[in-house]
Amino acid sequence: MSNKHAVVLLSGGLDSATTLAMAKAQGFICHAVSFDYGQRHRAELLAADAVARSVGAVEHRTMRIDFAGIGGSALTDFNIKVPEQQGQQTSTGIPVTYVPARNTVFLSLALGWAEVLQCSDIFIGVNAVDYSGYPDCRPEFIRAFEQLANLATKAGVEGTSQFRVHAPLIDLSKAQIIQRGMELGVDYAQTVSCYQADLQGRACGRCESCGLRREGFTALGVADPTRYQSV
Amino acid sequence: MSNKHAVVLLSGGLDSATTLAMAKAQGFICHAVSFDYGQRHRAELLAADAVARSVGAVEHRTMRIDFAGIGGSALTDFNIKVPEQQGQQTSTGIPVTYVPARNTVFLSLALGWAEVLQCSDIFIGVNAVDYSGYPDCRPEFIRAFEQLANLATKAGVEGTSQFRVHAPLIDLSKAQIIQRGMELGVDYAQTVSCYQADLQGRACGRCESCGLRREGFTALGVADPTRYQSV
Repeated sequence: MSNKHAVVLLSGGLDSATTLAMAKAQGFICHAVSFDYGQRHRAELLAADAVARSVGAVEHRTMRIDFAGIGGSALTDFNIKVPEQQGQQTSTGIPVTYVPARNTVFLSLALGWAEVLQCSDIFIGVNAVDYSGYPDCRPEFIRAFEQLANLATKAGVEGTSQFRVHAPLIDLSKAQIIQRGMELGVDYAQTVSCYQADLQGRACGRCESCGLRREGFTALGVADPTRYQSV
Repeated sequence: MSNKHAVVLLSGGLDSATTLAMAKAQGFICHAVSFDYGQRHRAELLAADAVARSVGAVEHRTMRIDFAGIGGSALTDFNIKVPEQQGQQTSTGIPVTYVPARNTVFLSLALGWAEVLQCSDIFIGVNAVDYSGYPDCRPEFIRAFEQLANLATKAGVEGTSQFRVHAPLIDLSKAQIIQRGMELGVDYAQTVSCYQADLQGRACGRCESCGLRREGFTALGVADPTRYQSV
């Protein structure tokens, strides 16, 4: 076990909870960070706090970002409807739930915090299998950010640390992610994946994210601990 | 003159005011953005608004960023003293006024907004001559961000736009920047460069940024319109 520190992006969803548990299992002392960007599914932020405690991050910060002023996504703009059919996308294959430059902004802030903490490892739970439509969930994006990080920062330039962006879920299916998390003791009942969860964190059961999550539990053949809104 | 739109980062300082005027002179319809990141020198934000109006941006937004929670810089952390000698740096040549990953975060948010506006040009007033100590003011950083932008975004992936990050001041001296701005009619009395300006936007006259600015006017042989705090 190392005593290295890492910044872990934690949304409160299934993927990032698993990522945090994987970082911890690799021996990292984990500093979790969530972003309050005016997302519809604010129950995520409460879930993130519960997950950070139960998985065992040494601290958990929530940073506010003014994404709502930008608009342009169903996740932050109340004039754009969250699609209730799985797989509903724009004509070009990118979902309307895509938030412009979201992971670039998240990683940038995580990078700033990592630099202050003098740590060089950042974990992000992006996944290129289920979310292949999101440009900022692809391996080439992660590699480009890693290159940028080493040019952008004092630590990178001085050579005191070489930044690494870990994306351990990138090639896993949802079922594989859940399996790995269960091995590590993640309590998925605490996590919220739904794009339009209610304030109690109960899922709609109809959006794309709910669909992908449910299929993961089904494919693995384990009970789905998700709390759904009564219909 | 084109009718292309651009997002222009505008701090309220001398450099970004000049950059905005240059973007406008190139025929861009300019959407200015400032960032409220808990900086000590908040008079900058008021100055940015005045500059946006007088240079003629079509809109000006100020986005809040939670940098204060990160700390680590004399510009956001009241426990770190702003140096009052020009050129005072850390032992490795990077100023204590460096804000971790600042330009990465600023450009990321600008990128998100550009994508929503469906424009592919971003202007930033970084300068590698006077600010050679800042890693995120170098040409290689700008190029790396440009590469990232085209991988990170829907517009980049779909090929609907190829992002360009313009840094027109990057190789200019402060005197050259001022000369160009004066040719374009920039009113530098509106701008605030000081790291610890008072609420009326009056400069301390002692910090590194004040020194570089004053030297620029002196080198050019023109009157310095800066309003200084009485000593």
